[in-house]
Amino acid sequence: MSLLAVGSVAFDDLETPSGIRENVLGGSVTHFSLSASRFHPVQVVGVVGEDFGPDQFKVFEGRPIDVSGIVRQPGLSFHWKGQYGADLNEARTLQTDLNVFADFQPDLPPAHRAAPYLFLGNIAPALQLDVVRQMAARPKWIALDTMNFWIDGARPALMEVLKEIDILLVNEAEARSLTGERNLVKAYAKVRTFGPRILVVKRGEYGMLLLTPEGLFALPAFPLAEVQDPTGAGDTFAGGFLGYLARAGTLDMASLKRAALAGTVMASFAVEAFGTERLQGLGDAELRGRMDAFAEMLRVG
Amino acid sequence: MSLLAVGSVAFDDLETPSGIRENVLGGSVTHFSLSASRFHPVQVVGVVGEDFGPDQFKVFEGRPIDVSGIVRQPGLSFHWKGQYGADLNEARTLQTDLNVFADFQPDLPPAHRAAPYLFLGNIAPALQLDVVRQMAARPKWIALDTMNFWIDGARPALMEVLKEIDILLVNEAEARSLTGERNLVKAYAKVRTFGPRILVVKRGEYGMLLLTPEGLFALPAFPLAEVQDPTGAGDTFAGGFLGYLARAGTLDMASLKRAALAGTVMASFAVEAFGTERLQGLGDAELRGRMDAFAEMLRVG
Repeated sequence: MSLLAVGSVAFDDLETPSGIRENVLGGSVTHFSLSASRFHPVQVVGVVGEDFGPDQFKVFEGRPIDVSGIVRQPGLSFHWKGQYGADLNEARTLQTDLNVFADFQPDLPPAHRAAPYLFLGNIAPALQLDVVRQMAARPKWIALDTMNFWIDGARPALMEVLKEIDILLVNEAEARSLTGERNLVKAYAKVRTFGPRILVVKRGEYGMLLLTPEGLFALPAFPLAEVQDPTGAGDTFAGGFLGYLARAGTLDMASLKRAALAGTVMASFAVEAFGTERLQGLGDAELRGRMDAFAEMLRVG
Repeated sequence: MSLLAVGSVAFDDLETPSGIRENVLGGSVTHFSLSASRFHPVQVVGVVGEDFGPDQFKVFEGRPIDVSGIVRQPGLSFHWKGQYGADLNEARTLQTDLNVFADFQPDLPPAHRAAPYLFLGNIAPALQLDVVRQMAARPKWIALDTMNFWIDGARPALMEVLKEIDILLVNEAEARSLTGERNLVKAYAKVRTFGPRILVVKRGEYGMLLLTPEGLFALPAFPLAEVQDPTGAGDTFAGGFLGYLARAGTLDMASLKRAALAGTVMASFAVEAFGTERLQGLGDAELRGRMDAFAEMLRVG
């Protein structure tokens, strides 16, 4: 009864005010699965090249992450090179080599088609829709991430897949360009007419906003003295959020709030080091400790 | 045992995506006192011109606001003209006529010099320091607001008055330029060496961050479907925050958190209409209702 995640697996070259790292393991489902698997078993579907070997697969070991759906193909893996200035909210893309990811056509293994929970990472909307159609039965919920590249360039296909979606996760700029509404409460009203009944707006260092038929919820980010690399923070948040929801088995407001807290805390760990480094070394007690500390911080007596 | 507030009283011409208003009552201590007085009696010290008459003074009536410290002088009142685009976080100043405010020299009436709580609104640091020196006894706490104009142009005087301050309220850009630190946790460590032991960072639509020796606290803004005019939101927040703290009589963490919630809710009302309109018509039940709703929204079970 896994949470199925479909998206990119990549190598990243990263430059932030804290340093430079090359060939760091990245990609949406990488960050997502390392985070979600703290709360619920995850099945990953993606594509990698011949440069992706045992060293990389090892990162997923020791966690309930099924990587049998990661297909290895001739050529090189997706490679992204990005740079952050003092404002860590915005990445500047220096280079994108799609490589084997250019022809990514997710083909779900039979064992994956019955997953009750589905996360569609940020890939072409047509592929996201194709994944939905491969499912043996309609999952209990489907969540989707997208970006302005698709909102601007593949809107008809995106609108098509949105009809199938329960939870939409986007950042503020994406919510605005998708709906044409600057105010996020109004943007949510529009999103509901597109299909999703739950909207999660990711706000980087400002936290997140959750809009549901039962009401609104907002969380600040967990305050940190040191952010080394924000790459993957959004996918790490999505992983914690959806992993927690999969474990809860319900989308009631209380679960959604706790899930938002879990996602926010996971993201706070992720950005403390480059790539997946911090999540790999993260102990359960440390995770529980920060979740408790954050819940206590938020408590207004 | 009032909360004494010193700062500007003004007329504003406002242009936002919701409309245009002229000669709206504004200024830092106007917004501050209308907000703070919901929680604690306030004494206001400021200067106005001959254009400020009974119609304007009427706005303060029916609330525990002592306006006997507002001096009326020959000439016109401070007049500000500002414009907001779709991004309501940033005001564009179209015109500033200081008028009588140019020669503002706060002279505290004897009855005001014993106030146990003092808010120094955004005026020249030299004047802020002068006010502190006029106090008969050191207040239980002093809070101060400032802006980049003084941080850049009057830093030595600002550093002097900061030595006397307990609570510093600034926005993110101001916290950064004051300290040279982009990360707000690090900025707080610097601020402590300047004097203030509590830092409040105002983040507009993203809420606020509170940094204290006892720990951190963050609140999102109260989510609103409609924002008509953000002018004075920061001073309204400061009013709710400090008014609540004056009533509580202590600066312990629990009080600080509740005060932050009160300030955030007051600011959420203020921006729903132009100028002071919304706060003037705000009923006690409505205020309590939103404070309860916000506390409930924030609760993660």
